[in-house]
Amino acid sequence: MEIKINNKKENKPENNKGFSELRQDLVTGDWVVIATGRSKRPEDFFAVKSEDKNEERNNDNGEDCLFCDPEKSGQEKDVLIYRRSDGEWTLRVFPNKYPAFSRAKIPRPIEKGPYFAMTGVGYHEVVVTRDHYRHLALMEKEEVAEVFDAFADRYLDLMNKKSVNYISIFHNHGKEAGASIAHPHSQIIAIPVISPYINLELKGAESYWRANKECVYCAMVNYEKESGERIVCENDEFIAFCPFASRVAFEVWVMPKKHTPYFERINDESKLKLAEVFQKSLNSIYKGLNNPPFNFYIHTAPCDGKDYHHFHWHIEILPHTAIWAGFELQTGIEISTIQPEKAAEYLRKQQI
Amino acid sequence: MEIKINNKKENKPENNKGFSELRQDLVTGDWVVIATGRSKRPEDFFAVKSEDKNEERNNDNGEDCLFCDPEKSGQEKDVLIYRRSDGEWTLRVFPNKYPAFSRAKIPRPIEKGPYFAMTGVGYHEVVVTRDHYRHLALMEKEEVAEVFDAFADRYLDLMNKKSVNYISIFHNHGKEAGASIAHPHSQIIAIPVISPYINLELKGAESYWRANKECVYCAMVNYEKESGERIVCENDEFIAFCPFASRVAFEVWVMPKKHTPYFERINDESKLKLAEVFQKSLNSIYKGLNNPPFNFYIHTAPCDGKDYHHFHWHIEILPHTAIWAGFELQTGIEISTIQPEKAAEYLRKQQI
Repeated sequence: MEIKINNKKENKPENNKGFSELRQDLVTGDWVVIATGRSKRPEDFFAVKSEDKNEERNNDNGEDCLFCDPEKSGQEKDVLIYRRSDGEWTLRVFPNKYPAFSRAKIPRPIEKGPYFAMTGVGYHEVVVTRDHYRHLALMEKEEVAEVFDAFADRYLDLMNKKSVNYISIFHNHGKEAGASIAHPHSQIIAIPVISPYINLELKGAESYWRANKECVYCAMVNYEKESGERIVCENDEFIAFCPFASRVAFEVWVMPKKHTPYFERINDESKLKLAEVFQKSLNSIYKGLNNPPFNFYIHTAPCDGKDYHHFHWHIEILPHTAIWAGFELQTGIEISTIQPEKAAEYLRKQQI
Repeated sequence: MEIKINNKKENKPENNKGFSELRQDLVTGDWVVIATGRSKRPEDFFAVKSEDKNEERNNDNGEDCLFCDPEKSGQEKDVLIYRRSDGEWTLRVFPNKYPAFSRAKIPRPIEKGPYFAMTGVGYHEVVVTRDHYRHLALMEKEEVAEVFDAFADRYLDLMNKKSVNYISIFHNHGKEAGASIAHPHSQIIAIPVISPYINLELKGAESYWRANKECVYCAMVNYEKESGERIVCENDEFIAFCPFASRVAFEVWVMPKKHTPYFERINDESKLKLAEVFQKSLNSIYKGLNNPPFNFYIHTAPCDGKDYHHFHWHIEILPHTAIWAGFELQTGIEISTIQPEKAAEYLRKQQI
């Protein structure tokens, strides 16, 4: 991947609250971020024992929540705010107080022996909906559509910033899924490099297109519609299904039926259609699995100006069930312990 | 990857205790295993809430431990057993009671629309050391060498089985790292397909070799020795260091200094040298991070008969600290919250 870099010393991070570097794995070419945020002592990494866990509940009860009143709790200034007709806010987006990236314009390259790195330049924002208890699975589709509206809105702004080549939009629900604050919130990260998993998808989609003159995701959508056994729900524009090669139990992908590489080009009508299928999927997971922790992540084409006509944007939802063998994510082949067909069948039942 | 497959119907799994299928991701080509083991109801996947967690401790106290006396607790027959001179066992290897794979000889291909899968054929074994409480970080190096001895021993047997093209050897310590049984144990999985991450490493190592006429891991070892700042410990044959592009805080790689692609060719003298550096690394993590959960995984070349002279085997240790942002494993770029240089410095201090 080409990255515009600039060696001039004056490009120091503007708001560097800690060390932040994008480092490239010498073998795989994958990028990692080493971001220390507030300077941490090694002792801060002490393993939390199960018996202590109840003490560090992440304010599930809504008391002193940092996101219930972001202004009062000293968050940074909103970059986007949606309000009801009576003036009360419903959704706000503001920079992460402890960003993993610094807002310098151009990354400075760093060479160390055989290794390559660059300063951790980028944008890290938080998308917060108002209600502390009502998370996405429990919202009306109009409210969920507003969240997608905010995602697209911020995407269209951030994609034009210098050095932004990829924008990750993701959501963690529940402490076990990485949410350090219980109040429902999504995160947006805009950076100079493409994430490893997206790279694999881009390459796979491109080579399938070359071999079959067809989009691999379209092939998937067509077969899922025909077979039906993995469908969770659908409407005329979107389909949600448990992928054939699910990595975790009850994994769900939400995908536009029409071929389209770029999430940010979604129109208002489609946002509502997406919200309907997406909310129904999340709600089925919520009801069927007793409100499990989950992550979702929007997989969309990079915004580096290249042509990605072979890609097909979609959302991947990964619930963390009691018997998630998440460790295989690092150690090799994933082992999922339920057939996607049975998972889909069970999720469909939750909608009755 | 080429896989020997056979379409005859008589190749049914011999010990199929549940559904097991290797399914290929249509986009990335990665393989996942859908293995249901004992048939599970969807309700079994209910999320375990934090408040219930203390109730389902995985027999940390050693009572009724399935692995303290494997014979009595109804495990399958040992495939390997090591004994002290007085006849008492010190280490045993037996088939996993609930294997993710069935021991058929040749996988049966399954085509479903655009998708490709095969029956989940393979071997799944458990390596158990005798003492319930003394895990690898607390053992003498001679005891750790015995564990590596067992790994190599089983590897050399399994690699010659039909349809075995890759052997994964890994260890999960602590429930948060996926260990469902507290008694120290490692796992060996021998299957027809290569794990996705190893594939990336093989490709990366090959292209580095082509470009630089040198092994990428040797380049790393040389630079780490020269710089010293990320070294955890070393002897004349092995080096342990926090990788430059660490994916998680306090990640440690243990690597032979001499170029060698195949773990299973290690000799007895080198096993002891490996055990020394490996045990010291684990012990530094144990002391420095308050006995955190961790995984380790032996990265070695496939046993599919192809030439992997460009690869360099090694072990990757991934501790789970209190603030492990493990969710990024799926959602994109990893964010590690401590510099590998500082992590290595802290781990070195634990050895004094």
